[in-house]
Amino acid sequence: MSDEIKDECGIVGVFGHPEASTMAYLGLYALQHRGQESAGIVTIDDEGKSYDIKRMGEVSEIFSEKKLSYLTGTKAIGHVRYSTTGSSNLENAQPLKVDYINGALSIAHNGNLVNAYELKNILEQHGSIFTSTCDSEILIHMLAFYNKIDFVEAVKKSLEQMKGAFSVVILNKDYLIAARDPNGFRPLAIGQFADGQFMVASETCAFDLVGAKYYGEVEAGEVVIFSKSGIHREKFAEKGRSAKCIFEYIYFARPDSYIFGESVFKIRREMGRQLGREAPVEADLVIAVPDSGVCAAIGYAEATGIKYDTGFIRNHYIGRTFIEPTQNIRDFGVKIKLNPIKDMLEGKRVVIVDDSVVRGTTSRKIIKMVRNCGAKEIHYRISSPPIVAPCFYGMDFPTRAELIAYDHSMEEIKKYLRVESVQYLSPEGLIKASGGKKENYCMACFDNDYPVDLKDQQTKFKFEC
Amino acid sequence: MSDEIKDECGIVGVFGHPEASTMAYLGLYALQHRGQESAGIVTIDDEGKSYDIKRMGEVSEIFSEKKLSYLTGTKAIGHVRYSTTGSSNLENAQPLKVDYINGALSIAHNGNLVNAYELKNILEQHGSIFTSTCDSEILIHMLAFYNKIDFVEAVKKSLEQMKGAFSVVILNKDYLIAARDPNGFRPLAIGQFADGQFMVASETCAFDLVGAKYYGEVEAGEVVIFSKSGIHREKFAEKGRSAKCIFEYIYFARPDSYIFGESVFKIRREMGRQLGREAPVEADLVIAVPDSGVCAAIGYAEATGIKYDTGFIRNHYIGRTFIEPTQNIRDFGVKIKLNPIKDMLEGKRVVIVDDSVVRGTTSRKIIKMVRNCGAKEIHYRISSPPIVAPCFYGMDFPTRAELIAYDHSMEEIKKYLRVESVQYLSPEGLIKASGGKKENYCMACFDNDYPVDLKDQQTKFKFEC
Amino acid sequence: MSDEIKDECGIVGVFGHPEASTMAYLGLYALQHRGQESAGIVTIDDEGKSYDIKRMGEVSEIFSEKKLSYLTGTKAIGHVRYSTTGSSNLENAQPLKVDYINGALSIAHNGNLVNAYELKNILEQHGSIFTSTCDSEILIHMLAFYNKIDFVEAVKKSLEQMKGAFSVVILNKDYLIAARDPNGFRPLAIGQFADGQFMVASETCAFDLVGAKYYGEVEAGEVVIFSKSGIHREKFAEKGRSAKCIFEYIYFARPDSYIFGESVFKIRREMGRQLGREAPVEADLVIAVPDSGVCAAIGYAEATGIKYDTGFIRNHYIGRTFIEPTQNIRDFGVKIKLNPIKDMLEGKRVVIVDDSVVRGTTSRKIIKMVRNCGAKEIHYRISSPPIVAPCFYGMDFPTRAELIAYDHSMEEIKKYLRVESVQYLSPEGLIKASGGKKENYCMACFDNDYPVDLKDQQTKFKFEC
Amino acid sequence: MSDEIKDECGIVGVFGHPEASTMAYLGLYALQHRGQESAGIVTIDDEGKSYDIKRMGEVSEIFSEKKLSYLTGTKAIGHVRYSTTGSSNLENAQPLKVDYINGALSIAHNGNLVNAYELKNILEQHGSIFTSTCDSEILIHMLAFYNKIDFVEAVKKSLEQMKGAFSVVILNKDYLIAARDPNGFRPLAIGQFADGQFMVASETCAFDLVGAKYYGEVEAGEVVIFSKSGIHREKFAEKGRSAKCIFEYIYFARPDSYIFGESVFKIRREMGRQLGREAPVEADLVIAVPDSGVCAAIGYAEATGIKYDTGFIRNHYIGRTFIEPTQNIRDFGVKIKLNPIKDMLEGKRVVIVDDSVVRGTTSRKIIKMVRNCGAKEIHYRISSPPIVAPCFYGMDFPTRAELIAYDHSMEEIKKYLRVESVQYLSPEGLIKASGGKKENYCMACFDNDYPVDLKDQQTKFKFEC
Repeated sequence: MSDEIKDECGIVGVFGHPEASTMAYLGLYALQHRGQESAGIVTIDDEGKSYDIKRMGEVSEIFSEKKLSYLTGTKAIGHVRYSTTGSSNLENAQPLKVDYINGALSIAHNGNLVNAYELKNILEQHGSIFTSTCDSEILIHMLAFYNKIDFVEAVKKSLEQMKGAFSVVILNKDYLIAARDPNGFRPLAIGQFADGQFMVASETCAFDLVGAKYYGEVEAGEVVIFSKSGIHREKFAEKGRSAKCIFEYIYFARPDSYIFGESVFKIRREMGRQLGREAPVEADLVIAVPDSGVCAAIGYAEATGIKYDTGFIRNHYIGRTFIEPTQNIRDFGVKIKLNPIKDMLEGKRVVIVDDSVVRGTTSRKIIKMVRNCGAKEIHYRISSPPIVAPCFYGMDFPTRAELIAYDHSMEEIKKYLRVESVQYLSPEGLIKASGGKKENYCMACFDNDYPVDLKDQQTKFKFEC
Repeated sequence: MSDEIKDECGIVGVFGHPEASTMAYLGLYALQHRGQESAGIVTIDDEGKSYDIKRMGEVSEIFSEKKLSYLTGTKAIGHVRYSTTGSSNLENAQPLKVDYINGALSIAHNGNLVNAYELKNILEQHGSIFTSTCDSEILIHMLAFYNKIDFVEAVKKSLEQMKGAFSVVILNKDYLIAARDPNGFRPLAIGQFADGQFMVASETCAFDLVGAKYYGEVEAGEVVIFSKSGIHREKFAEKGRSAKCIFEYIYFARPDSYIFGESVFKIRREMGRQLGREAPVEADLVIAVPDSGVCAAIGYAEATGIKYDTGFIRNHYIGRTFIEPTQNIRDFGVKIKLNPIKDMLEGKRVVIVDDSVVRGTTSRKIIKMVRNCGAKEIHYRISSPPIVAPCFYGMDFPTRAELIAYDHSMEEIKKYLRVESVQYLSPEGLIKASGGKKENYCMACFDNDYPVDLKDQQTKFKFEC
Repeated sequence: MSDEIKDECGIVGVFGHPEASTMAYLGLYALQHRGQESAGIVTIDDEGKSYDIKRMGEVSEIFSEKKLSYLTGTKAIGHVRYSTTGSSNLENAQPLKVDYINGALSIAHNGNLVNAYELKNILEQHGSIFTSTCDSEILIHMLAFYNKIDFVEAVKKSLEQMKGAFSVVILNKDYLIAARDPNGFRPLAIGQFADGQFMVASETCAFDLVGAKYYGEVEAGEVVIFSKSGIHREKFAEKGRSAKCIFEYIYFARPDSYIFGESVFKIRREMGRQLGREAPVEADLVIAVPDSGVCAAIGYAEATGIKYDTGFIRNHYIGRTFIEPTQNIRDFGVKIKLNPIKDMLEGKRVVIVDDSVVRGTTSRKIIKMVRNCGAKEIHYRISSPPIVAPCFYGMDFPTRAELIAYDHSMEEIKKYLRVESVQYLSPEGLIKASGGKKENYCMACFDNDYPVDLKDQQTKFKFEC
Repeated sequence: MSDEIKDECGIVGVFGHPEASTMAYLGLYALQHRGQESAGIVTIDDEGKSYDIKRMGEVSEIFSEKKLSYLTGTKAIGHVRYSTTGSSNLENAQPLKVDYINGALSIAHNGNLVNAYELKNILEQHGSIFTSTCDSEILIHMLAFYNKIDFVEAVKKSLEQMKGAFSVVILNKDYLIAARDPNGFRPLAIGQFADGQFMVASETCAFDLVGAKYYGEVEAGEVVIFSKSGIHREKFAEKGRSAKCIFEYIYFARPDSYIFGESVFKIRREMGRQLGREAPVEADLVIAVPDSGVCAAIGYAEATGIKYDTGFIRNHYIGRTFIEPTQNIRDFGVKIKLNPIKDMLEGKRVVIVDDSVVRGTTSRKIIKMVRNCGAKEIHYRISSPPIVAPCFYGMDFPTRAELIAYDHSMEEIKKYLRVESVQYLSPEGLIKASGGKKENYCMACFDNDYPVDLKDQQTKFKFEC
């Protein structure tokens, strides 16, 4: 994608492993693409003593051998996070960890509740004091409220009342509990180490790094309880209408991961092929917007028979910021990250394949840069449908007004991007490439059809994580 | 390349530009691949006041808008550096900057002198005090020694006495001077801004970013003097036997750069094609060791007609270090950076293309990882000849004993790597792909033929930069 | 005092002042002697937005002009803290600040509750989650619990249930409230600026620095409410048996402060005079253990007619730590802080006056050092009675077993200190010097008579601040 | 003193001690009053490997156990420094340390050369490159210049050419050398540990702390060489006119030190007594400007029979900076450091004794503050003569125009200070109190008679340390 969408989280959990904190750390390392703003790990040992390290920044900067060895115990949960600027602060970093009447308790959460405001209000009236603006804290306070009943029951009772998208891991002295909302918006997979211990993670690429095997999915509406007596699975709610986020396949997930049980690589490649079948063009060269467009671009090249090649050199040493000169430099904002190879593009008819377009501003810059290299024709192909609506289940899209496809015709988009042609993958093509059925996915950003009611979105206060 | 060679420097110089420090900063940003250990910029204003910022770390971490605005003046030089562990410290970071009897003076240097020890000894006997173990400091002391003669003459007289590889930029109140040793080991190009001001840089990708145009090369044995009266070029020594480092084409330079006046991309692609012609094989798939092998791999695929595809997903969030678990994890050291796409490799006959092999240890790990994904056959192809000798002109190769090709037959290498076949590009093929003549390149690492005498290498003390 | 007692807090509050945060900062500057471990200031503006800065360290290190200007608003509270090692961490630093259902709320507290454990347990059963081990947090949770009744009523209702020593300041959008427990253990005074605005502080020296005038005491069992409608005073509880901490006069308070309405300097000087009358001796010289003994030492000299002089030079640049050599150095631990003036002491009969003795270990070292300078006789005089019992109302004394006077006779103490004579001020003399009546003071550390029941002290968990 | 004079250095040297760096550290701890801006220690082990730690800040902040153990070897030199704002930077911090042709070399210096500019110019013409603006670097370059002759001879030859005030310690692989200029401006004493090893330090209070015994003075014009063969003393120059800085007795040195072989405490007390004899007055109370005036104030009280008491409470927690409110607060700038005890001063006739007055601005503020407490009469007494001229030998006085006594009559000073009377100690009284002869002291700041020619002072460039 040429515009950056900010996914909001990656989570991991490890149970019964002698190097639990190191496994959680490596899991987060592999999930870093899901959030680069903050990272944290919490462990709780068998005596109930808890340890946590959370900081702004990337996993590789935050943890050291010494810090990992401080994180004592055989069970751990971890979290990486990206968020909108307003609330980018350590207080909202996860996992959240508290000591309440029943001891240490920690939670990490991926997703977004739609009834957060309502639940918070009830809890505050009851006397609860919130210390973050992160909706995961609601679950913490509900668990503290239910302190007199059995812990697993308290978890189930609490989750039952939460509406929206949530994949969570919960840790206390005795249990690691993993759960997904009844609609199953966000992914959460179970892995198993050679010695039998379990791990959960947002994506399976975390298992590959630590040498764990894929074991299965945490199902929608299910709590999976890891304890000394092994793995135990229960429903906490009726399964709702299945609503797997199809954007995980398009952009978020690493291509080497399996998401909702399917290979991201295969589906993403097939999207490119389908796009080639739907929107072929006469051209000399297919190039990708690196790196997220590469997989679909090769698929497009396969389907159309046009040669694929590397069109851009990516600067691998881009930091979080760079300083722009006062004087205007042509294509500067894009060129700091990508430099086109002029010899490759000059005089050619070029197809540029991207995975998705949000605002369109970066696409326009990339196109201009390719044009400046002397490309004769430029055909823009996008391996997903037009984005027309925001996400309320955990993806950080801009508002409707900023989405280029919301109120512009294809002709207008073509004009704005200044290309010879522009084509999106059709919604039907997307479904076909995914190998599933429309009713199993959340495609609200493409079709405005929100699987779960949005009343809280009317309120001013927006809970996040 | 699967083993990391550490190039030692990238340099830039800017003259007469209102945003000189920002231009130097952006130049270094583009040259970051030439050195990630330290970076620095020095400016000297027209009153002779000097400003410098140097730190360990990457360009994006070191400089801020505030720091760049502190770096006052319209002329600047900059430096990025990688070095061997022993002397990785701020004292050796460049540019060096001193105040001597004629005012502020600064130098940045890429390369390695072979008579450093000898020159240092003479200067020390004369009373000079060295503050670094960087051989660039020798030039500083020579210039201080020649303080009573004209500055440009002093520069020429000093450079004349230096032997080995050096591309340098020198800055004082009045001049920016760029020079290359008489053999022309290391690259140094001249660029020009739209408004006529000049810039020099190790690679032309620096010009692309700031919107400057390529103007030409600093020639071997030449000093190029930038002053208020414009650009002025002089020889400081007879041109020696031409000895352009061919490794710049193979690995160091960014593919979007022009080096010694030629397109790196084109030559590197041609190396892949030539390798395909020299060493074809029956296979289902060509994959590259990312990212340095991609360019040659596509060339190999073109020449052989075998399909190219992405075999590995690279983790873009690798920090400078990572923590390994105590327990052994299969293929861990490689997998933290690269994850193979199993679906792609299973049951296939795979050609892996790499740009070069130094120790062979990483190659072996990558191959093993591919094998573990179920590849039926693995054919390793290297788009450069076997490395058999160390470099004394600025590349940080290990000692002979550590070079796998130094004392192992092809059969032994094949056994060590555990592949069905392994083949290198021939020296002749390399020359052919480069489009030049053997006598114009330094290929000492491949053929043990050192263009400049190495007496200082016998001495214990090794000057660096 | 030669052994260090750690007082636990100093607090300030400012209402309606255009430079509220700066006034709070200066107040804390003046109260720094009451706690050097952490400091913090919280402001809440009229819209209810809160701002806080808290850090480990001293006031002068923590705040800058920029930070003070960030602390927006016309009302502020502040806190300096010393605590026992175990819980020396930022989480326990004050003021505490939360957002609850009625908006921002902040509290700073000096003292120690004796029913903290009991209250915490009730609140936790109700679902409250505590984030510190600081007993001030109990008040916060009680206020959140009473969120549906009027704020001032909620404060009164909450304070009513707290037992032990507490001087507190409470801040929200509308009010600054100052209160003291019904026994009035810890001091809290009211000051007034020239323009009519109010300030409260643990000691009046804070008013001197900011140019405010002393206005009166916050009375025991009283809440003083500062709001837009001025100052308003109410009882929240029947006044209990008066229990002013007499140790404030002996050691804690700065001599230039007025505490409980009386001049510390005058009382402390009178203690010295009384000691002179009770325990005179033939000697050549009276010296003080600096700086806390100086005031009484001059009084002792006055009453006995013996010449007072400076016996020690104090090193003013003592940091928080110093490194001791491996090899033993005579009197090292004391000498790093104090160096005796040999010429002054040699051959003399010396009276050393100290304000109090806790463990006696430092006194012994000081005496030895004076002896090593050639003093002929050493007479130790202490301007307070023997300390025989710990404090549960906010002073951090060691346990009984560590108190030298707890189970040693005067003869044993004399032997331990190795002096010609040792004498304490009598309890009656102390009362006389203070100008008050025994029944108005807490002298539990001298007479084991605790004014408020101690049930929580039996429990393991100790709440602090 | 009420205005702060910035002394420029304290130095130490340790030879042959197993904990050399720790002894140097403790020595600097004791000399911290001589400079709080930066501190450093250098050690050189017997193989010639050198170790150094230098930083801005106080000794207690800079060194840790780990850092001291890094400073390997049995010989060390150390330095504390205060300097004028302009050149307050790490580059000028000492000890200076270089590697030159004969190995590691380090120097620490107290004083100020008057021919620095001249010497530097000669060395620079010869090709030397200076890296600091510290005149100690001149000595380093001279030693590098004389690299072919015997080291001790090189030291003597170099020192011979230096004019002005210098007490130095020099360290290399084999020697610790201590030296004082031929006039003996600045102090430097020799101490000896119980086991026979030697130490040198600016003041003897450093010996007290580490348990070393005073051994004697480094004489003016002498080099004292400590080596494996013991202590060896030589003249490097004819002794010049003796010019001991009398201000060391008045203000700089700690009262518990011996300077130039005499007790500072005794001389300073005697100055107070002499002042009492020269300038008595009818009054109720003698108070001191703390802490530097206390010693003389007690002497004044003795001589006049007026009672001495503590007039001010000093805030011991003053950081390096404090933030002043925007609104004007009466006496603020002084009150942040000192608070007068009103009860003590009200209605009294008060003598305030100070050790010296530079600009008079702070004195005026202190007097005003005392007046505001209700003092009936204020008599200001200064235990040194009027300062009328700047120092060029290492004290950082302001320029002539800023010295209140330079161009104001006693009547004008009295008016400015707003006192009933003001009196200084006479120059004759000062000499008498010091027990020496006028011709042995430098009193240039009082009598404008500079013992060593000042030609370099005409030049613009001022070398410092």
